[in-house]
Amino acid sequence: MAGLILACDFGGTKLSAAVLGAESLDRSDAAWQGHLRRFAPLGASAQTDIEMMVAMGRELLAGERPSHIGISFGGPVDYKSGVVRLSHHVPDWENVPIQQLFAEAFGAPVGVDNDANVAALGEWRFGAGRGVADLLYVTVSTGVGGGWILDGRPYRGASGMAGEIGHTVVDPSGPVCLCGKRGCVERLASGPYMAQDVAEARGLSLEAVTGKLVAEWAAAGEETAVSILERGAKGLGVGLGNAANLLNPSRIVLGGGVTKSGARWWQLVRQAAHETALPEVQFDIVPAQLGDDAPLWGAVALALLEGTVESH
Amino acid sequence: MAGLILACDFGGTKLSAAVLGAESLDRSDAAWQGHLRRFAPLGASAQTDIEMMVAMGRELLAGERPSHIGISFGGPVDYKSGVVRLSHHVPDWENVPIQQLFAEAFGAPVGVDNDANVAALGEWRFGAGRGVADLLYVTVSTGVGGGWILDGRPYRGASGMAGEIGHTVVDPSGPVCLCGKRGCVERLASGPYMAQDVAEARGLSLEAVTGKLVAEWAAAGEETAVSILERGAKGLGVGLGNAANLLNPSRIVLGGGVTKSGARWWQLVRQAAHETALPEVQFDIVPAQLGDDAPLWGAVALALLEGTVESH
Repeated sequence: MAGLILACDFGGTKLSAAVLGAESLDRSDAAWQGHLRRFAPLGASAQTDIEMMVAMGRELLAGERPSHIGISFGGPVDYKSGVVRLSHHVPDWENVPIQQLFAEAFGAPVGVDNDANVAALGEWRFGAGRGVADLLYVTVSTGVGGGWILDGRPYRGASGMAGEIGHTVVDPSGPVCLCGKRGCVERLASGPYMAQDVAEARGLSLEAVTGKLVAEWAAAGEETAVSILERGAKGLGVGLGNAANLLNPSRIVLGGGVTKSGARWWQLVRQAAHETALPEVQFDIVPAQLGDDAPLWGAVALALLEGTVESH
Repeated sequence: MAGLILACDFGGTKLSAAVLGAESLDRSDAAWQGHLRRFAPLGASAQTDIEMMVAMGRELLAGERPSHIGISFGGPVDYKSGVVRLSHHVPDWENVPIQQLFAEAFGAPVGVDNDANVAALGEWRFGAGRGVADLLYVTVSTGVGGGWILDGRPYRGASGMAGEIGHTVVDPSGPVCLCGKRGCVERLASGPYMAQDVAEARGLSLEAVTGKLVAEWAAAGEETAVSILERGAKGLGVGLGNAANLLNPSRIVLGGGVTKSGARWWQLVRQAAHETALPEVQFDIVPAQLGDDAPLWGAVALALLEGTVESH
């Protein structure tokens, strides 16, 4: 395989793009030939986002035509039609045919998917999931969401909604989630919800607490933070164990800011997950490896998939 | 496709076999050419079970050689190697290479899998799941177990353990399950556990109550039975909703004796499942159609799969 791969990440208010020579992918030191990151201006819309990303792509490609394009989008995407359904961050993204727009702009095949599925693909192809045929990737961050690799290929579900582990219920007597249910994994384990619970329990303003602070306070032994962080770790672990019983993946990869909460957090997540799964259901739980560039590496993996195997 | 398909069902103490002309499969009135059902004698072992099943096959085939053989086994099976891991009902089934034994006995390709996966295949090919690419089949009976069809093919997990919805946790403050956890779907929703809970609450002997009686008493308005049956229906529904959020199947098919518990049970299962799933995660929940012959029809579907697509 030869040519330049263009990887694009629409990450809410942050736009990133990079190019990679496809021939470098087989090398262990594969690295971007060019990389740009820009913040969308105040008053950004789908149209200004797209214009900015196309300009970044043209700048990186410097007149060359890409062989493949992969796009990660931070919001729901209809993978089959290549249409963005909406953005929770930027207006006017409803039903934008982004696959078609980029194919026309660059004259190359385009793959597009939501950020969780793309990150799963990236970790599978380039990161902590290499060599594994059955993989669950979960990001634990502002929200909790996931993506599947099953039988050696991405699995998206009947309407592209698979991976919503954040809204599986693990404690029906738990606190109420924005989705209306009690005890969702996201309600227990996401950064903003843990921060909210600590703020309320300690009588602090919501603005004064973040998920990162909860982890720091817990590390310093502050009791409320310890309790909320441990409840989150256990809730996430039960959700992962339930997912393991249902699908029997051999590996679970965790990414996102909350996974930086320390060894105790990891230990509790792993313990709850393995206690929840049947003894015959074996898997390991490992940290994601790709860091901030995960969506871009995932976009490369998606671009390669588009180019080499039949999409469904 | 032509030739005779031999379908075998090792169902604990009950052995069933049937033959079908492959050319009849495209007809809407496809029916068994021959069908035998026998009970294993007292003191049965793996060896006597196999001898009896081979004899039933020979009797049905009357000297003809089958084109394909499918086997449903009521216990864990290593699908890839075609080896039965063990039986919970009959001794000496540990690591029996049943695929190889039947291939040698009949000179035909053999597919073998556990009863939940086989039933999922059967409902997908011949029953309530026809035409659906993404399907969860769940049997709610003595236990609660399931099987997946994903992207139009069976999905078994990294080590063949996928589908263990019965041991997903939906209420960590619920009653203790034999697996050691609290509030598993099976603990709440299976026939024997519901019978046990009603017996204990009413001070009856365990032998005096069955899952079927719980459903009858609930239909007659007996309060304890109503409460236990409704708790089971809701617990199952939450488990199905969690599974829907995780995998986004378009249909869930429910089989097994507990699904005969009446309209109120179905209504509560459906309500809890749809309340648990996100609004964008859409699916229907329908009764299995194949009844007692489900494992045999599933074995036919498995045999066809072995004969036409690459096994993994």
